[in-house]
Amino acid sequence: MNQLNVCLSPALIPLYRVEDYIVVIIDIFRATSSICYGIENGAEAIIPVSQVEECAAYREKGLDYLLAAERDGKVVEGFDFGNSPFSYTKEKVAGKTVVLTTTNGTHALHLSRNAKQIVIGSFLNLSALCNWLKTQDENILLVCAGWKNNFNLEDTLFAGAVVEQLKQLDFKLDDGAIAANDLFQIGKQDISEYLKKTSHSERLKQLGIEKDIEFCLQVDLTTAIPVLDGDRLVKFT
Amino acid sequence: MNQLNVCLSPALIPLYRVEDYIVVIIDIFRATSSICYGIENGAEAIIPVSQVEECAAYREKGLDYLLAAERDGKVVEGFDFGNSPFSYTKEKVAGKTVVLTTTNGTHALHLSRNAKQIVIGSFLNLSALCNWLKTQDENILLVCAGWKNNFNLEDTLFAGAVVEQLKQLDFKLDDGAIAANDLFQIGKQDISEYLKKTSHSERLKQLGIEKDIEFCLQVDLTTAIPVLDGDRLVKFT
Repeated sequence: MNQLNVCLSPALIPLYRVEDYIVVIIDIFRATSSICYGIENGAEAIIPVSQVEECAAYREKGLDYLLAAERDGKVVEGFDFGNSPFSYTKEKVAGKTVVLTTTNGTHALHLSRNAKQIVIGSFLNLSALCNWLKTQDENILLVCAGWKNNFNLEDTLFAGAVVEQLKQLDFKLDDGAIAANDLFQIGKQDISEYLKKTSHSERLKQLGIEKDIEFCLQVDLTTAIPVLDGDRLVKFT
Repeated sequence: MNQLNVCLSPALIPLYRVEDYIVVIIDIFRATSSICYGIENGAEAIIPVSQVEECAAYREKGLDYLLAAERDGKVVEGFDFGNSPFSYTKEKVAGKTVVLTTTNGTHALHLSRNAKQIVIGSFLNLSALCNWLKTQDENILLVCAGWKNNFNLEDTLFAGAVVEQLKQLDFKLDDGAIAANDLFQIGKQDISEYLKKTSHSERLKQLGIEKDIEFCLQVDLTTAIPVLDGDRLVKFT
């Protein structure tokens, strides 16, 4: 029987033999939501990096990259845009390669790099992702990117939403998957309302990006599944 | 405002400045339950160690130690008893020092050693522990010892039970505390039934220790609060 496991923080990834899993990276506010939206809108690739400096280095490669970096909720000077999903529209990203600065997401990706396959999940592509996962006949590890290596509720709730769609199949759930799914039962009636009590949501509100948060909680807005190919996230075909 | 935080796995302890917290160590099946019961029953001290060999070394110290070690649910040959709470009765432990082999619990204790104070929690001493915590006016970190460094449901559910008793006070909850408390809401009607779906419970059942499990889920059987003093757990007075 295949495993359906939820890794509640990147710090716990080393406890899994990722070689045995398809890994889904989850960073709802906002990296994996923006990635799903950007790939849906025709970005040729999205390259996640952890540091603003790494991102800036792509400018010197002289190629036609769009560089995304922000600090304290504001676009860093000299960069094309920040991490808001509203920057990842067709008009802006179609045919382009975007270099995206995201600490938590890149960290999770890096620690999962030996997985059978790495794909990107968010509420935006929830059902498309789950329908694809259902056809794979593999162990699945849902990796919550969390916040500074610790647990967060929004990524866990999304993991619980994936478990909800997959649990009727013949998977063995670990305690993380059971917990995530139970939390999803509590939050699913109004995910936005449920997440208002979290500390991270409070932090994001202070950054003035409530619209981003609402955008990231839309379910099934997109159907593209971003998949890691080398160091680039591209559309699964 | 003081923090009330839940650390879902020992692997996440380094993310907290434990110096700023009273730490509660939680290892429901069965180390911290047995410790609470043993201290309640007059054990002079309980010394947690991680390896059977460390435990055995106390025999050579020539003192009057009771040595507790088990492998695969059976008492290791040459030891006085295993980790079952039923071994920690007045008749067996009153006035004695017990050296207890417990991998997960010792690991969590070790990583928390710089805390302001370290106490031991289990369903057995739930209300006594919470009543004491309420009087402390300190940050509180509930550390789930988990299973092989990963998340487990039974320790998290207990952490949620503590949050339930403390949350009316003026604490700031982190996402771990919110999640643990929400899971407790789901499980509290019948904790034993809720935990039956976990993998660890399945493993313990295979060891034939269902009676231990039921014992460990009894609420408020004891009032003693074990506290760490050097490398010894003693009764808080």
